[in-house]
Amino acid sequence: MKTLLCAALLVGTAAFADEGMWTYNNFPSAKFKAKYGEPPTQAWLDHVRLASVRIAGGCSASVVSPDGLVMTNHHCSHECIEQLSTAQKDFIKSGFFAKAGADEVKCPDMEINQLVEISDVTKRIQDATKGTADAKFNDVQKAEIAKVEKECSNGDDSLRCDVVSLYRGGKFDLYKYKRYQDIRLVFAPELAIAFFGGDPDNFNFPRYDLDVSFVRIYGKDGKPAHFDDYLKWSAVNAKDGDLTFVSGNPGGTSRLLTVAQLEYDRDVKWPNAIAKLAEYRGFLNEYSKKSPEAERTAKKTLFYVENALKAIKGRQAALADPKFFASRVQAEKDFRTKVEKNPKLKKDYGAAWDGIAAAEMKLRAYRKEYELERGPQGELFGWARTLVRWAEESGKPNGERLREYTDSRLPQLKQGLFAKSPVYDDFETAQFGYSLDKTREELGADHPVIKKVYGPKSPAEIAKELVKGSKLKDEKYRQSLFDGGKEKIEAAIATDPMLAFAKAIDADARAARKRIEDEVEGVVKKNGELLAKAYFAVVGTDTYPDATFTLRINYGKIAGWKEGDKEIAPITTFAGAFERNTGREPFDLPKSWIDAKPKLAMETPFDLCSTNDIIGGNSGSPMVNRAGEVVGLVFDGNLPSLGGDYGFDESNNRAVAVHSAALIEALDKIYGAKRIVDEIKGTGAAPKAGEK
Amino acid sequence: MKTLLCAALLVGTAAFADEGMWTYNNFPSAKFKAKYGEPPTQAWLDHVRLASVRIAGGCSASVVSPDGLVMTNHHCSHECIEQLSTAQKDFIKSGFFAKAGADEVKCPDMEINQLVEISDVTKRIQDATKGTADAKFNDVQKAEIAKVEKECSNGDDSLRCDVVSLYRGGKFDLYKYKRYQDIRLVFAPELAIAFFGGDPDNFNFPRYDLDVSFVRIYGKDGKPAHFDDYLKWSAVNAKDGDLTFVSGNPGGTSRLLTVAQLEYDRDVKWPNAIAKLAEYRGFLNEYSKKSPEAERTAKKTLFYVENALKAIKGRQAALADPKFFASRVQAEKDFRTKVEKNPKLKKDYGAAWDGIAAAEMKLRAYRKEYELERGPQGELFGWARTLVRWAEESGKPNGERLREYTDSRLPQLKQGLFAKSPVYDDFETAQFGYSLDKTREELGADHPVIKKVYGPKSPAEIAKELVKGSKLKDEKYRQSLFDGGKEKIEAAIATDPMLAFAKAIDADARAARKRIEDEVEGVVKKNGELLAKAYFAVVGTDTYPDATFTLRINYGKIAGWKEGDKEIAPITTFAGAFERNTGREPFDLPKSWIDAKPKLAMETPFDLCSTNDIIGGNSGSPMVNRAGEVVGLVFDGNLPSLGGDYGFDESNNRAVAVHSAALIEALDKIYGAKRIVDEIKGTGAAPKAGEK
Repeated sequence: MKTLLCAALLVGTAAFADEGMWTYNNFPSAKFKAKYGEPPTQAWLDHVRLASVRIAGGCSASVVSPDGLVMTNHHCSHECIEQLSTAQKDFIKSGFFAKAGADEVKCPDMEINQLVEISDVTKRIQDATKGTADAKFNDVQKAEIAKVEKECSNGDDSLRCDVVSLYRGGKFDLYKYKRYQDIRLVFAPELAIAFFGGDPDNFNFPRYDLDVSFVRIYGKDGKPAHFDDYLKWSAVNAKDGDLTFVSGNPGGTSRLLTVAQLEYDRDVKWPNAIAKLAEYRGFLNEYSKKSPEAERTAKKTLFYVENALKAIKGRQAALADPKFFASRVQAEKDFRTKVEKNPKLKKDYGAAWDGIAAAEMKLRAYRKEYELERGPQGELFGWARTLVRWAEESGKPNGERLREYTDSRLPQLKQGLFAKSPVYDDFETAQFGYSLDKTREELGADHPVIKKVYGPKSPAEIAKELVKGSKLKDEKYRQSLFDGGKEKIEAAIATDPMLAFAKAIDADARAARKRIEDEVEGVVKKNGELLAKAYFAVVGTDTYPDATFTLRINYGKIAGWKEGDKEIAPITTFAGAFERNTGREPFDLPKSWIDAKPKLAMETPFDLCSTNDIIGGNSGSPMVNRAGEVVGLVFDGNLPSLGGDYGFDESNNRAVAVHSAALIEALDKIYGAKRIVDEIKGTGAAPKAGEK
Repeated sequence: MKTLLCAALLVGTAAFADEGMWTYNNFPSAKFKAKYGEPPTQAWLDHVRLASVRIAGGCSASVVSPDGLVMTNHHCSHECIEQLSTAQKDFIKSGFFAKAGADEVKCPDMEINQLVEISDVTKRIQDATKGTADAKFNDVQKAEIAKVEKECSNGDDSLRCDVVSLYRGGKFDLYKYKRYQDIRLVFAPELAIAFFGGDPDNFNFPRYDLDVSFVRIYGKDGKPAHFDDYLKWSAVNAKDGDLTFVSGNPGGTSRLLTVAQLEYDRDVKWPNAIAKLAEYRGFLNEYSKKSPEAERTAKKTLFYVENALKAIKGRQAALADPKFFASRVQAEKDFRTKVEKNPKLKKDYGAAWDGIAAAEMKLRAYRKEYELERGPQGELFGWARTLVRWAEESGKPNGERLREYTDSRLPQLKQGLFAKSPVYDDFETAQFGYSLDKTREELGADHPVIKKVYGPKSPAEIAKELVKGSKLKDEKYRQSLFDGGKEKIEAAIATDPMLAFAKAIDADARAARKRIEDEVEGVVKKNGELLAKAYFAVVGTDTYPDATFTLRINYGKIAGWKEGDKEIAPITTFAGAFERNTGREPFDLPKSWIDAKPKLAMETPFDLCSTNDIIGGNSGSPMVNRAGEVVGLVFDGNLPSLGGDYGFDESNNRAVAVHSAALIEALDKIYGAKRIVDEIKGTGAAPKAGEK
């Protein structure tokens, strides 16, 4: 359940029970105390925050040793594992274990961020946009944000600074991270056990997944980075009813969208996303049957597509519930009535709902055209677009660039562009051709851009020619173009057909994006800020903001739930996994498990569920006890938790985690990974770089 | 745009402008007169009705010569053309033309119905259910309908009698048809021109499709059937603004669903259908790339899936329009207020809305389980289920059988079961395995039926074993089992794995169906009847019922429309088709057209659009002028017309037809089909059976 990277511009609801994805600078100590006793100290919070890290691609993780060992999910390292694999040696299938430090292999394209400081920049950002017209709002705010971020990192690539819009623009905080880009793979089990049960069991519980991987952060000196703050391992197994904290980066929630926005999600966004992902899934599954190599090369994409599809279906289902939707309509009505009854509030904020509703109607009208920006897909096309745009963006002042080309974003962009990641011609051609076909479908064969760029050729023909004819597979070539800048890139456009294609649709794609940024996003931001201020005035500030893929902490307890008359117990065991094994994908335990069975303690807790309030992006989050020690590793939510995008329901929304005991038992007895066990338990000597 | 076979239990809206799918026994003469002058006489209506025929599989058609020549769409004969094709001789690709009568080839599985009589049986059906409890309503009504139908056909297989529920159960008419099952293929062009522009252009206009086929009705004597009533060909080409009638069988509309039902469609039914069809499409498209034979064998299914997907997306989009949806909410409120203000009406009908809303909530709860009834797909499985059920149903009284096994439905059921239609092992296995996988997904791997029936095996394994192991491919074997009845079928279940599989899930599938029939459909029917009566009392009876895949007539005129600022002209020409030709699928004109180009009149009208109110099921409908002469052949609607399911909008809803001039020009100059041209123009001698 990697983040879906939803737009999240919104204010959080008043929090009840265990609900709440709290920012680290606003932990609800009083509320916590009323239910669970003594709240965490500031030192505790600082320690857990510094040991919680973010994988920039969309996951959470934690540092679990002083030598930079990082625990996250298998599915958070899936891309790295796949990039390191070949047709001959498939680590996705076989798993990976670096027996010694020197065997740890660099992930081509992984960035890890450690949040070292949060500071309030609300006044500066809001002052910059004060009195700005709708259509200019987005540009002005973007420019000020780019400025603040640049000042913060001040040219130091080892820092990453992000201005985060919280409470729908009611508050802006500057998040300062240490940025690490030398991340090496240490351990990953076989996909068959990391994702046991596959898509059928995804978001289900009971569950039997060892969805774990370990990577290590290396410093610029090529040695394991040292961390003072790392999470210790709990010596005691967590059990039903135990208090649990989850510290991670929920990707996005939508708990205080206006009704007009909810209607857009329910009626337009999700049905369209479902149609696209479902068809893509059908294509990928059937493509995978062509050959083992086809299956291998499409697997990562298939995983993301199936995961997203299931998550979105859950979100759509939450909005399709008439009672739930009616409750949101009523809540808006109540809030609005309160605002309208107060002349000052009415004057200042009363028009915000209609402003957003009008923007949503524009979004309906503009979304098809946006396919030019979002549609064409593939590794090569992605790089081509990045280069084509860099030729233009590099000549602009920082504040006027597209957001992903601002100075503070460049290190991540370059890492992706320069990464030595494999391109498989057959899959690349199939996938790119597929997306060209879908783009034509969305815009219509008579759309002037389609006519101009596709000409008489079929999407499959174009894809074949472009993939075959492009030199962008070579990461050194890509780097040379980037470093060569505008002149060199423009010369290459004349000879490389993928660059030429990206260039040919670029003006129209940019225009489609600009229109939505100016007329929809900007207007929603501007009015969202008004709604946030109204909300603070009416409800108060003792609440949490919607998720924004930034670090949050929440608390809850290990607990099952009731499904109709059925009680779902909160902790599964190894025995259950062996019972569920059919020997057929996706219910096939790997050979390593079958072989190790006699040695395993069958009563070992395997997966667990808890009332922690999480969502996509929280994957890889550590689950810790009152002492801040690891008791689990979050990797999923249950099906009802998918509705948590729109509102948390403690009766049945559950986070799903690997139990810490399962990790130790498997590492030790199945994978012979004693050096990791020792390191996380703090019982062994720390590894030295280069040590065999 | 074959019918989607939607449930249609509903009352039509008051008709404005050209709106209205009128039953032949309620033509709105006064309304017509006010706009278009002298209305059709009863003789005219009787004549056009008798010349309009229905293809039982889901299309419309017309008799266009005294010797039973029938004109319909290519896509309405697609199944027949495919069944007559082989890997060596693919008539879908090459087209088909019987140079002489003796070359006309029997379609394995086509039934044509001619509506000869309509009689009112409202009192009898409504009296039978009077005072019946919710849960029994469906059974009691079904039994009475089966009785009426059986009395009507009285054992004569050449008659087909259907009781049709109109106005949501406010009126029941008995439709008596002559049934024809010896239908032979006469002519079909290449798919490339019948469906020029493929899925991208489907439901679009301007359009350039020759979506036509001709078949001939043969009598039991093996000779062409004689028809006194057939449509003559117009000597004059229809032009912009001309009055047009369309006579055909719209499959289903939903123009007076209650708001609770509309919410179900918008939030549950369509998003789920879109997800299923989209993924199926992705699978089929990629499967088709395996080989030319894979492409050929999957083509028919792909066509239906893409067509349905596009149609459903259009319907979903109509409901997603906030203004439209609000108008339906308001209309219901107004209607309900009127009912509630009148104490008598309130007492008799006031509870109907809530009754339907409660049934819809049950439908939400029960729909997943219904996958057992709807899910598994494939030719062999379909036949297996039919046989397994026949073993049980054949021993029941007519009125207690599942509807498709009642006496009046048996001839069609047998025709399908005994048809010599090809089964392609590879596609059958792929498709059946795919559907087993999806059924497991919908119900969950832990569902008791899935555990019991699938066991540890994967869906692909099961499909392979069952397709390979079944003898049901042999139509003689199927017939012998059917004729052998319960005993013979039960013996075969022990040896044929596909029969055994169908048997294994049957009890649960039936239970899932029964629950929905009793607790949802029955309740909706019962309350629908109340709403209809309320509607007649408040609004009157001068209206048309929702479409029910029975014969309707409507009128309109040839007219373009405005899309934003763009005027869409209503008639295209041959020249436009040649301009649109790219030489690449699906925009590739066939060789026959390229070769014939010098002979063709480029200004020949090709396709046209009109304001006639149509929907899926109208495919193949004749479009006639005031004299009842053919001026076009309906094959599609434009994109906005898809919303016509929920309400007709004359400003942009358009029927799309092949112009009669295009048919003559192509038959004559491209296909050398002079004998058809002569026959439909009435200028040649009628063909004799067996004549070479």
